[in-house]
Amino acid sequence: MRTQHHPARDDIKLSDIFYALSDPSRQSIIKELAKKTVLNCKNFELEVAKSTLSHHLKVLRESGLTQTRQSGTMAFISLRREDLDARFPGLLDAILGAYAKEEQDASGA
Amino acid sequence: MRTQHHPARDDIKLSDIFYALSDPSRQSIIKELAKKTVLNCKNFELEVAKSTLSHHLKVLRESGLTQTRQSGTMAFISLRREDLDARFPGLLDAILGAYAKEEQDASGA
Repeated sequence: MRTQHHPARDDIKLSDIFYALSDPSRQSIIKELAKKTVLNCKNFELEVAKSTLSHHLKVLRESGLTQTRQSGTMAFISLRREDLDARFPGLLDAILGAYAKEEQDASGA
Repeated sequence: MRTQHHPARDDIKLSDIFYALSDPSRQSIIKELAKKTVLNCKNFELEVAKSTLSHHLKVLRESGLTQTRQSGTMAFISLRREDLDARFPGLLDAILGAYAKEEQDASGA
């Protein structure tokens, strides 16, 4: 099993989180992860090259937003809810709530 | 009075907000604005060139996080709290709370 770098909970930085969230593709990944908890990286509904997806997943992992568990040729990705809630209480929920509001407003609801 | 572009409340986008917050200098500006409400742009405690500060203030304004009121040679900058709270309820408070938590953790408190 390959081990990939994940920042320790206390080393998660807001500037890294916000940088990770500044990209629309990474925003889509976070929204998917919020709904499905864990995703095989082949299951993302993103129409980008595999290398681009790998880059986005690396930025998300290194920001502390996600964790990647590698099992053979499969990678399982999930939000680091527990760590994020401990480090920055309420922030992840506020971000996910804001995404929902933005989608709702865009759909004219 | 020069008029500068500010996005309408409903056009404020999360990806722009997070991009604006991804830079440590802009993060410092937001933290200062959270404490002082309105600042003359000469009063920022940032050691950057004037042109760099102008750029950061432009990114913040165009993201919808701040408003700039130009009066003669003076610029007054403030957070768009009301607009942000209406567009993304709870988000700004969560972000400012996270900044406070990050500072507190860094100071070993």
